[in-house]
Amino acid sequence: MYTDKVIDQFQNPRNVGELDNADGVGEVGSPACGDIMKMYLKIEDGVIVDVKFKTFGCGAAVATSSIATEMIKGKTLEEAEKLTNSMVIDELGGLPHEKVHCSVLAEQAIKAAIKDYKSKH
Amino acid sequence: MYTDKVIDQFQNPRNVGELDNADGVGEVGSPACGDIMKMYLKIEDGVIVDVKFKTFGCGAAVATSSIATEMIKGKTLEEAEKLTNSMVIDELGGLPHEKVHCSVLAEQAIKAAIKDYKSKH
Ligand code: FES
Repeated sequence: MYTDKVIDQFQNPRNVGELDNADGVGEVGSPACGDIMKMYLKIEDGVIVDVKFKTFGCGAAVATSSIATEMIKGKTLEEAEKLTNSMVIDELGGLPHEKVHCSVLAEQAIKAAIKDYKSKH
Repeated sequence: MYTDKVIDQFQNPRNVGELDNADGVGEVGSPACGDIMKMYLKIEDGVIVDVKFKTFGCGAAVATSSIATEMIKGKTLEEAEKLTNSMVIDELGGLPHEKVHCSVLAEQAIKAAIKDYKSKH
């Protein structure tokens, strides 16, 4: 049902937690399942130098957020804004159809955190 | 949104894992979200002496399964079979309405594991 990459990212999630000194914070909820996701960004000179996430969501939400944080770390805001849930799913080698809504949380939380940063700067 | 008890059971889940020598194993999936739950029981003289669970489900699924395993450990099969998701939700001090379907996984997985045990004995 799940690829090895999904299982690995779920069992050893990267960048879980909070950032006390976050420059942008995004929180989103899934209408499909009611789960929530919070994303923290540390930004220097337009580059994402650190990122953490917290979620109450399922294994697919954990796996997609974990790999998404790896994909945007060290990238510019412009690059990070282009990240879509399809790119994340491709990177994981696929997700069951009924779990695609979980992967949307990561994309939306990153976009919300960037928007939060831009609104303050 | 979540009670302190739910957060605690999610962040420090009890009885997570597998039992190599399980006497009964139950695996169920949620039609609502596609998540899966596996429950392992060690049974001696009709009493549940050990129990472990594994899930790819969300925080609510983890919290309800964790407390459910605490509620059935040391109980007879007859008592454990009477456990319902409403009892589990009461014990947690409530769950958001859209997360009630997650709590059904624990009840169903326990019933499936008991059924598996009975079919073998
Ligand atoms: S089912 Fe809610 S995030 Fe996956």
